[in-house]
Amino acid sequence: MSKLYFKYGAMGSSKSAQALITQFNYEELGMKVWLIKPSIDDRDGADIIKSRIGLSRKAMIIKPDDSIYEMYKDHKDCDVIISDESQFFTPKQIDELRAIVDDLDVPVICYGLRTDFRTKFFPGSMRLMELADSLTEIKTVCSCGSKAMVNARLDPNGRIITEGSQVFLGGNDSYKAMCHKCWIKKIKEQQKGEQ
Amino acid sequence: MSKLYFKYGAMGSSKSAQALITQFNYEELGMKVWLIKPSIDDRDGADIIKSRIGLSRKAMIIKPDDSIYEMYKDHKDCDVIISDESQFFTPKQIDELRAIVDDLDVPVICYGLRTDFRTKFFPGSMRLMELADSLTEIKTVCSCGSKAMVNARLDPNGRIITEGSQVFLGGNDSYKAMCHKCWIKKIKEQQKGEQ
Amino acid sequence: MSKLYFKYGAMGSSKSAQALITQFNYEELGMKVWLIKPSIDDRDGADIIKSRIGLSRKAMIIKPDDSIYEMYKDHKDCDVIISDESQFFTPKQIDELRAIVDDLDVPVICYGLRTDFRTKFFPGSMRLMELADSLTEIKTVCSCGSKAMVNARLDPNGRIITEGSQVFLGGNDSYKAMCHKCWIKKIKEQQKGEQ
Amino acid sequence: MSKLYFKYGAMGSSKSAQALITQFNYEELGMKVWLIKPSIDDRDGADIIKSRIGLSRKAMIIKPDDSIYEMYKDHKDCDVIISDESQFFTPKQIDELRAIVDDLDVPVICYGLRTDFRTKFFPGSMRLMELADSLTEIKTVCSCGSKAMVNARLDPNGRIITEGSQVFLGGNDSYKAMCHKCWIKKIKEQQKGEQ
Repeated sequence: MSKLYFKYGAMGSSKSAQALITQFNYEELGMKVWLIKPSIDDRDGADIIKSRIGLSRKAMIIKPDDSIYEMYKDHKDCDVIISDESQFFTPKQIDELRAIVDDLDVPVICYGLRTDFRTKFFPGSMRLMELADSLTEIKTVCSCGSKAMVNARLDPNGRIITEGSQVFLGGNDSYKAMCHKCWIKKIKEQQKGEQ
Repeated sequence: MSKLYFKYGAMGSSKSAQALITQFNYEELGMKVWLIKPSIDDRDGADIIKSRIGLSRKAMIIKPDDSIYEMYKDHKDCDVIISDESQFFTPKQIDELRAIVDDLDVPVICYGLRTDFRTKFFPGSMRLMELADSLTEIKTVCSCGSKAMVNARLDPNGRIITEGSQVFLGGNDSYKAMCHKCWIKKIKEQQKGEQ
Repeated sequence: MSKLYFKYGAMGSSKSAQALITQFNYEELGMKVWLIKPSIDDRDGADIIKSRIGLSRKAMIIKPDDSIYEMYKDHKDCDVIISDESQFFTPKQIDELRAIVDDLDVPVICYGLRTDFRTKFFPGSMRLMELADSLTEIKTVCSCGSKAMVNARLDPNGRIITEGSQVFLGGNDSYKAMCHKCWIKKIKEQQKGEQ
Repeated sequence: MSKLYFKYGAMGSSKSAQALITQFNYEELGMKVWLIKPSIDDRDGADIIKSRIGLSRKAMIIKPDDSIYEMYKDHKDCDVIISDESQFFTPKQIDELRAIVDDLDVPVICYGLRTDFRTKFFPGSMRLMELADSLTEIKTVCSCGSKAMVNARLDPNGRIITEGSQVFLGGNDSYKAMCHKCWIKKIKEQQKGEQ
């Protein structure tokens, strides 16, 4: 029986590299992979799954209104579905992936972020956390050596931001994976400094 | 460094037994456990953690407006906090448990349901899934032999119900842990029978 | 497809309680469990799986020369095989459990110790570590708060013993689950004290 | 507190890629990695960790008589030790890695094969399975779609070989990761064909 997998991790935990390695492993066995990715923006290369370590591959873009269940009909010969950035799927699309697993017995492996810069779920990661058969953390380290969990959003001065829209494209903010303890500690220090 | 644990499972997966066994293991080593449980109702015995296999123990009841962080000050000598039915904590209370882990270096082990009878999070399980350092599934089987995941709500005629309030006390409905595939299949069969 | 599971843990990690809870969960669903245990000695009650928390149940004793594969023919109606003290099975018996999983599609769930008082495998746990589809640790704590891993053997004066036969029945020695760091530290302190 | 990790998997499960990604993640944070590998032969490039997906990196070679504990003194500034092919370390070297974790509080992450072509441990993987704080499987698939576990050794005619020396360099044999069920089935079919 096939399963719905959610392999979640903080930024910089090599989720894209893991997605591409899993694809590689299946393909090496002569199996067929349908590699997908939710659309976020229209920038050039938005359909590329790219990892910082140097791997990259073209994926099929899924728009918020697309029905993955319907699109699958053109990919019936695939042995597995692998997605990156799965936190950006709509809850309805995750329900469709669940249905593909249940109805058609195809394994679906979703890589993605667990939470945003305020430690709140994205719509897709929330539904995956509710529905996946298997939850696995892709671990990475905080600079203190502990496991990182929070995707801290930093302004150009390196200050942690805790308000704003969930998805933030362009601009000068950056992200840093931190453990919850270091994240809270830095926020409190910022607050003290402001008084 | 201490951690926040969420050990989630479907109904009948022996979460309460696991909570009491963990308590037992700590106490056997001479360590002190603060055993807690969110209040759900005022029925007699609401403060008892009771497992179907025959184990039971009194726990401290936490009401929705209680501050666990404040209450902890009267339990500073405890080596670990263990809770059952953690899905019923408020998100704010989970934030407090997170703060106890981070600020005071006390491990917090939360047992509870992952989702309700519609496969949607409870407020407490959602926040735990966002914030816990460690997520572990307590597994149990569907009658088909696969892993159970959905807490199906059944009416007195054995029909699966998919609408209604999240928490349902009293009445004649019952619950059954099922795998997602069997759950969906049975719902579809019911719908066909109605046409 | 069924699996061979090895759920290993140090002494006092509640392996027997877990075995009995798993049995209970299957039986509650109307499924049939074949509960087994390797023979170690002929003492009264050797056929009882008993946990310190107060649960107990009679199991079928498997002697070193028994063929579990042959014995299974009288238990063909069981839905699952659950064993406690699995470290004491012979490697050949673990191979038979593997064959029952592969040939007959029956899940086999083995609970047992990982290593002896010198951190060396038992014959059964070694073969399970080589062959099981799923390895899960049943965790317990060292008195320092870390995870316990070593089953320290203590003489009546509380000194750690690191030589002797693997299985030691009767006598005045006792066992204590410790983390590797505390175990090594105590051994070194003992050695210093002797000089 | 640091840990000793064993991340094991069958051939072709991308263990080397995982080792290099973990190294990359640490280095991106400005942390220092000591990348090591047991010596197996003297062929050119024996000191390269190379993954089929296209990543490669030079590692320090550890010979069977080397003391990793002593060599570490020249790498005191490293934040983590990462090794590939860890199944080929001697048991004594695994004990040394354990001591580095316990005494010096440095995390050690070992990647390697679990078992050989007869489903028996290698010396290094056996000791790691006895001593590691954390055991994680790096999964890959059998051509049947199940999880692969056995490293089948195939002769030039594609027949599975079950006898011979554990390490086999050069020659015309090849390896294929298979699930235990398919492996046994194929061996039985070969035997039937021979009669």
